[in-house]
Amino acid sequence: MTLHQAPWRDSPLRVNERAAVLVDRLCAEADALQVRVHRDERGLCLIDAGITVPGSVGAGLLIGEICMGGLGRVRLGTGARPGWPTWLEVSSDQPVLACLASQYAGWSLSATKEETGGKRFFALGSGPARALAGREPLFDELGYRDRPGRAVLVLEVDREPPAVVIDKVLRDCGLSPAQLTFILTPTTSLAGTTQVVARVLEVALHKAHTAGFALDHIVGGSACAPLPLPSPDGVQAMGRTNDAILYGGQVHLSVAGELVAARALAERLPSLRSRDHGRPFAELFEQAGHDFYRIDPELFAPAEVWVSHLGSGQTFHGGRLDLALLQRAWLQEA
Amino acid sequence: MTLHQAPWRDSPLRVNERAAVLVDRLCAEADALQVRVHRDERGLCLIDAGITVPGSVGAGLLIGEICMGGLGRVRLGTGARPGWPTWLEVSSDQPVLACLASQYAGWSLSATKEETGGKRFFALGSGPARALAGREPLFDELGYRDRPGRAVLVLEVDREPPAVVIDKVLRDCGLSPAQLTFILTPTTSLAGTTQVVARVLEVALHKAHTAGFALDHIVGGSACAPLPLPSPDGVQAMGRTNDAILYGGQVHLSVAGELVAARALAERLPSLRSRDHGRPFAELFEQAGHDFYRIDPELFAPAEVWVSHLGSGQTFHGGRLDLALLQRAWLQEA
Amino acid sequence: MTLHQAPWRDSPLRVNERAAVLVDRLCAEADALQVRVHRDERGLCLIDAGITVPGSVGAGLLIGEICMGGLGRVRLGTGARPGWPTWLEVSSDQPVLACLASQYAGWSLSATKEETGGKRFFALGSGPARALAGREPLFDELGYRDRPGRAVLVLEVDREPPAVVIDKVLRDCGLSPAQLTFILTPTTSLAGTTQVVARVLEVALHKAHTAGFALDHIVGGSACAPLPLPSPDGVQAMGRTNDAILYGGQVHLSVAGELVAARALAERLPSLRSRDHGRPFAELFEQAGHDFYRIDPELFAPAEVWVSHLGSGQTFHGGRLDLALLQRAWLQEA
Repeated sequence: MTLHQAPWRDSPLRVNERAAVLVDRLCAEADALQVRVHRDERGLCLIDAGITVPGSVGAGLLIGEICMGGLGRVRLGTGARPGWPTWLEVSSDQPVLACLASQYAGWSLSATKEETGGKRFFALGSGPARALAGREPLFDELGYRDRPGRAVLVLEVDREPPAVVIDKVLRDCGLSPAQLTFILTPTTSLAGTTQVVARVLEVALHKAHTAGFALDHIVGGSACAPLPLPSPDGVQAMGRTNDAILYGGQVHLSVAGELVAARALAERLPSLRSRDHGRPFAELFEQAGHDFYRIDPELFAPAEVWVSHLGSGQTFHGGRLDLALLQRAWLQEA
Repeated sequence: MTLHQAPWRDSPLRVNERAAVLVDRLCAEADALQVRVHRDERGLCLIDAGITVPGSVGAGLLIGEICMGGLGRVRLGTGARPGWPTWLEVSSDQPVLACLASQYAGWSLSATKEETGGKRFFALGSGPARALAGREPLFDELGYRDRPGRAVLVLEVDREPPAVVIDKVLRDCGLSPAQLTFILTPTTSLAGTTQVVARVLEVALHKAHTAGFALDHIVGGSACAPLPLPSPDGVQAMGRTNDAILYGGQVHLSVAGELVAARALAERLPSLRSRDHGRPFAELFEQAGHDFYRIDPELFAPAEVWVSHLGSGQTFHGGRLDLALLQRAWLQEA
Repeated sequence: MTLHQAPWRDSPLRVNERAAVLVDRLCAEADALQVRVHRDERGLCLIDAGITVPGSVGAGLLIGEICMGGLGRVRLGTGARPGWPTWLEVSSDQPVLACLASQYAGWSLSATKEETGGKRFFALGSGPARALAGREPLFDELGYRDRPGRAVLVLEVDREPPAVVIDKVLRDCGLSPAQLTFILTPTTSLAGTTQVVARVLEVALHKAHTAGFALDHIVGGSACAPLPLPSPDGVQAMGRTNDAILYGGQVHLSVAGELVAARALAERLPSLRSRDHGRPFAELFEQAGHDFYRIDPELFAPAEVWVSHLGSGQTFHGGRLDLALLQRAWLQEA
């Protein structure tokens, strides 16, 4: 465990302001990227990236960077890698702020049937607005809090959030409606799948955090993962994005601190350290009775990792890809 | 066959307007990219990208994106892939508009000796201005037509187009001279070879179209191909750009529609389905008496394809690279 | 040898002006990239990219492009290549100006104990300001000289340059203090290691020059190399950046001129032509008594090269990677 407390308390970096530039680009390119931008009567902006419109991989790349608060790059690598043609490449010089203070889907937002006047609503909010609300204990640990201004929250849902959820977000963030943008990305859409696979670096940071690794010792990160097509089936779609990371994700972290901690991280981090490793995620999820929390949390990790230790210059390697599993699940000869 | 008629009739996307931004960048970077920008007395802009100046790969990348009407990305991937050091990566979220409505070299432009007062002129116009002229039946099928404004046409030629051709383009597009830019890229130049190999995705779309696949079912595409050096010999230079795609091109398409249609596309698409597959293009061309139309049209296709079917989430794979053929043709140990 | 004299005498390209745009971006992104920007009382700008602040790989990428005078691209390729997760990709359409007139660390700057009033200072200046000072014979050969304006010089040092060195640079460049920016990148920092490995293409150009290849025949270049973490030990850190290029660097050059010269270049260029090839650089350096000049100059070269000859279209291949050596030196199973 670390003695460092709230190391990002004085950070001048503003994830919402940085993301706003990218949100503007998404809106300006709405036709080309096949998203729909709508402002309600109060000025609140809703971007549909795959519910009533097709969306696109390009929209997903941009949403991935929005999720990272403008502190990460998400790129498409096309062709010529063995086993799968299309990959995402992710990197950040501020991986903790980009991935944990912003991208991580950690803000639980729900509404009862009574509140919605219809179906129950549940979503995990991700992206920069989380750092305004600061509702998660993680923010106390980081010490990071963004300052009000324009803000954006990404929801992996297939319908608009109900008024009660919108109002809660506005209230918790201290925003007026015209300052807030919601981006809606169903997992079963191109943009949805893309922005989830773009979490490959975040997944590593989250597991590092859970394992007690000092976050302020993580100074840089890069990653890649194969980009699958979405499945029209929700469980299968979620399964694929998870499999892309668990069996196809590769992460390279640069860390300060003790050598033994770096080595232990490289050993602990890969998904193959989990007892559930080796089977497609959708299968595990079915078997767990669709209960996420009955799946071994150690599984949520990249397939292969490199942890470079700044103090010694040594790099530790752990895990390995299982592209054969992905090919069996995703691919068929014509 | 599809029942969809003219699905791009109402598209607000404007390929010439998008390309104009990139044309401005090409002009601003003319010295660095070694192209020559010339405005004639009427204001018509001619960009020489390899006739009286060397041009460059960088110019070719930009011209590739201009050809795609600003709806595609063309990047250089350098080093570290087995077999060949330099590759192009191409992708688009609007592959039909980018590749068929804009990039495809489908506008036949010619002038007789009498008309030129010298040598006969022939060129296939490619790029956004095609979508203004709309001279090809394809545009009725797409329903797409750009609106007048600034426009750009790319010609794969080694001399300036004669006045009669320029006037025809102006007339068919409904443009004044100051609104039109021609970009001239000989196949034997660096930029010429680059912008032709950047057609790897377009080649797949064109074959899909010929095979009767519903164009409005193609929702995304990415591709890559090895980038050869041009040959100073015209036939060899053309042969190389073709070989790069036929034996080194990889394409990933995302499609809607029926599963069987997606699978059939993956089976039909690769170049190895052609009876002419397996020999360098220049050799086939010589044997066909320099008559393009005697070569099996099925050959004009990428070497390897993946077709991802959105309705099922299944991806079908077909074809394979033949880098050994390229290496024999292009490479020699020092 | 060539008969061409001073071929860049009339070049309108201005490396300092182009780099200034990138310097402004580095300053604007100082917080995110973890560099520190300081203006002294005279207006001179000092950017600390790894002495009192951590710096970052992202800063190193930008500094790599600054070094190349805005005439080259330096990108991070993440994951999925066999053997090492993170690579740099470098390319230029103006490789001689970018690499030799700007990036090459050829300007020797030193100050005695008496002059500094403390420790002796020594640094090799690299980047665009060299082309203003023109203190090296190379500039007569190129004929290139930049025009005064804003200028930037990169120093691979772990402390600020003394006043006597600053004044010499100002004087030799004909600049007022407010026109000059120094960027300081210790080899032991993330940015320092990154910007040195970004010299993979330059190393090839320098050796080509030493070998008497006509520089004006080099018309394009691209390259890649694995990006190691820095070592906290200066000699080890330098060793790693060298090893990345000598055993992991791949370079593709396009050249005009005679076929035999192109073939000879491909044969001569790779590092394995050196008698010192095959051992880690730090080991060779120790053995040479820390005397750079006792190491065989032929060693300073990429591991593998392709030289494409424009006149014939033929590409010559030479050398090979030795990733096993890098893995032994850099990597350990967790």
